[in-house]
Amino acid sequence: MNGINEAMLIDFYELTMANGYFNSNKRNQVVYFDLYFRSIPDRGGYALFAGLETIIDYIDNLKFTEEDIAYLRSKNTFSEPFLTYLKEFQFTGDLYAFKEGSVMFANEPIITVKAPIIEAQILETFLLQTVNHQSLIATKASRIKYAADGRLVLEMGARRAHGLSSSLHGARASYIGGVDGTSNVLADQVYGVNAIGTMAHSWVQLFDSEYEAFKTYAENYPNASTLLVDTYDTLHSGLPNAIKVIKEVLLPKKAKNYAIRIDSGDLTYLSKKARKMLDDAGLKDCKIVVSNALDERLIRGLLLQGAPIDIFGVGERLITAKSDPVFGSVYKLVAVEENQKIVPKIKISDNVEKITTPHFKTVHRIYGEEGRAEADLITLDNEKINPDKPLTIFDPQNTWKTKTFTTYTLRNMHVPVYLNGKRVYQKPSIEEIKSYAQSELNSLWEEMRRFDYPHKYYIDLSKKLWKMKHDLIEKR
Amino acid sequence: MNGINEAMLIDFYELTMANGYFNSNKRNQVVYFDLYFRSIPDRGGYALFAGLETIIDYIDNLKFTEEDIAYLRSKNTFSEPFLTYLKEFQFTGDLYAFKEGSVMFANEPIITVKAPIIEAQILETFLLQTVNHQSLIATKASRIKYAADGRLVLEMGARRAHGLSSSLHGARASYIGGVDGTSNVLADQVYGVNAIGTMAHSWVQLFDSEYEAFKTYAENYPNASTLLVDTYDTLHSGLPNAIKVIKEVLLPKKAKNYAIRIDSGDLTYLSKKARKMLDDAGLKDCKIVVSNALDERLIRGLLLQGAPIDIFGVGERLITAKSDPVFGSVYKLVAVEENQKIVPKIKISDNVEKITTPHFKTVHRIYGEEGRAEADLITLDNEKINPDKPLTIFDPQNTWKTKTFTTYTLRNMHVPVYLNGKRVYQKPSIEEIKSYAQSELNSLWEEMRRFDYPHKYYIDLSKKLWKMKHDLIEKR
Repeated sequence: MNGINEAMLIDFYELTMANGYFNSNKRNQVVYFDLYFRSIPDRGGYALFAGLETIIDYIDNLKFTEEDIAYLRSKNTFSEPFLTYLKEFQFTGDLYAFKEGSVMFANEPIITVKAPIIEAQILETFLLQTVNHQSLIATKASRIKYAADGRLVLEMGARRAHGLSSSLHGARASYIGGVDGTSNVLADQVYGVNAIGTMAHSWVQLFDSEYEAFKTYAENYPNASTLLVDTYDTLHSGLPNAIKVIKEVLLPKKAKNYAIRIDSGDLTYLSKKARKMLDDAGLKDCKIVVSNALDERLIRGLLLQGAPIDIFGVGERLITAKSDPVFGSVYKLVAVEENQKIVPKIKISDNVEKITTPHFKTVHRIYGEEGRAEADLITLDNEKINPDKPLTIFDPQNTWKTKTFTTYTLRNMHVPVYLNGKRVYQKPSIEEIKSYAQSELNSLWEEMRRFDYPHKYYIDLSKKLWKMKHDLIEKR
Repeated sequence: MNGINEAMLIDFYELTMANGYFNSNKRNQVVYFDLYFRSIPDRGGYALFAGLETIIDYIDNLKFTEEDIAYLRSKNTFSEPFLTYLKEFQFTGDLYAFKEGSVMFANEPIITVKAPIIEAQILETFLLQTVNHQSLIATKASRIKYAADGRLVLEMGARRAHGLSSSLHGARASYIGGVDGTSNVLADQVYGVNAIGTMAHSWVQLFDSEYEAFKTYAENYPNASTLLVDTYDTLHSGLPNAIKVIKEVLLPKKAKNYAIRIDSGDLTYLSKKARKMLDDAGLKDCKIVVSNALDERLIRGLLLQGAPIDIFGVGERLITAKSDPVFGSVYKLVAVEENQKIVPKIKISDNVEKITTPHFKTVHRIYGEEGRAEADLITLDNEKINPDKPLTIFDPQNTWKTKTFTTYTLRNMHVPVYLNGKRVYQKPSIEEIKSYAQSELNSLWEEMRRFDYPHKYYIDLSKKLWKMKHDLIEKR
């Protein structure tokens, strides 16, 4: 992957449009774009925002090299003055975003970019891809961790990921979403996602006996031995050999963190049988790890049946978000600046939900008396809310549905990340992001975390914003 | 993504096992691993193999840097002699593979690696990820292109891809699978996948009128104008403005390749109406492009209803293989070398389909009189088949089911890619791979390309191999 310039990860039309703007009188037009999504994957009650660090690394390094310019010239599509402009390109705009790890909902601006049109357009593909991918996996991970109900969850999906970045950033996003570690060495090296490992069936096959395979491993890793017991026969060969090796090798060394792993068969049945065999052998400290195409629903099913599992290894269904692998953020023009005034822009659609909400906006989260998030209120960026007065919000589709808060606190979800092209935001560490994500999830009512028909959270517009949007629709 | 060493994209257990082997008497053990998959995504009739070039680039550059070694040392898990070994690591083994773009089926060795155990193990994660990802997308693309029934298909999924490599290698795999171009500039720059572009809604919104937006674009790109007509009202605003601009700007310049694009609404209804409006205006040459979460089934549905569509833009459902986003290749130990003899190894499972087929093997494709692929026959690597004699194959599960070929030709699907660590295979160009893939698809009976309940292709074992496998199962 070396020698690749992320700036070139861009849809061709961004560049044809940029070239067109450059050659027109729109060249310096300042615009506002919102990045938002229209629905939550898996019909869930919330999503987790991830990817901001990747976006910052991208913008901090955003430039087109001589080789890029030469390649673009070869397409015979772009004017020389535009290519000269690209060679000197830098981002000079503003970018506001939710903090990474935030809980977020449909139809609210997660990122707002204010910049000259060409710059705003050039960011589009990378921003969308990054938010879509990492938020998808962080959200899925948070569901899986929730299903595991306090037990450890390890991300092991690298081999089924959609390429290197899918596994690398997927491991990072999983960790932010609550997963406890990864099999992916690169994710540990680059992002500090704790990497862990067990053994493969090939290890067991290669030795003359399963017993010898386990023994050799235990001698090498007395404090991190997870013995894979299903190569030949889980209950009649794997478990007896594992118990023997634990007693002969690990217990005399006062080993910690030893476990057996079951990777096939009926995981409820086998984990119950295994637990009993281990307990009968006096190995109550031995943990049981299971893996095999798990996700939040399968994990919940196993636990409901009382499977005595300590650790879940989750692979393909997490790293690809198999049950719903598309996170559908879009990036839409919402306003332009004319004579230093903001002029809202709208895109109409036959499909009411595809109509954009115009203008430069921000998002306020409303917390109720118990400190839980109760609703998000989208307002014009400069709208003031008096926190000493009761706050009444209303459903933007069904305006007769209102709710009034008397005791509440407000939080503006947008933080400035770039102002006039200068970064004004320090990247938090991954542990800070992970712990912030956890606090975000804890701020939700349990009802919103249910997998089936979760409670619907209110996302409302201020009266001013709602009126402006409807005036624009009428005017057309 | 710069500064990343692909060698470090590896599951942690590969390294703990490697360290364990290094410290044991297994260190120089030569082994055979097969890479194969157990089922075809989407219950399809075939899969397309992609990713070999990426694997070659990886192996050609496979080494651990000083920084990697320092990082690994910090894990306090590996012995110093092993870290020294890693610092000097190079692949010295053999690798046989199907040619990239080959049609392939479940349970046959697509790649076979013969190498000292540590080397073979270190390749595992990268090989699996690459084959799984790229074959998944190439296979999906071939289905979508088949549904389009000769019409152009463009890959436009970068914004919904699972990170940079998902979009980059996904665009490449889509192209191999039959798709005609991509929106992804990076895929064009790096792999020569033809990049194309249209315009976004933001372009239309930014100008004072839709007419002005279209006109400006057409003036900039007289030979590549695709006007997006659904920003405000497809039939009452978009189409009339597009027709006006085509007549005023494009026809006088004798422009070629102009089109309108519809990105929302009912695509059958709107494309029919649009076609009629364009034809009535004398614009029979104007193409109709549609996009909006398309896949093979939606495209087939549109065409069955007679939608006059010329070009399909396909995004999220191709680049994520949404309907079935996991391609499940595995990498299994099948033999070891002892005293220069090959000793087969087997992994037993309660699940009969998870039992491995042992030994060093190869795959012969049998072509019948009409030149179509009729069956694959897996044999020991050194088994001879006399092509002058009739060939009888049998179902490995239901051995009474036999089939005899009298007139047939055979092709060995394995090509040597590395021998003793030296690459002995020249990478074909992407156009060669694409055209080979097309010839591979053409060698299939149409019945195998059906989406629902396709004809099942025979994958049989030679008598010798079958007997050896069953002897090993009995022996346990």
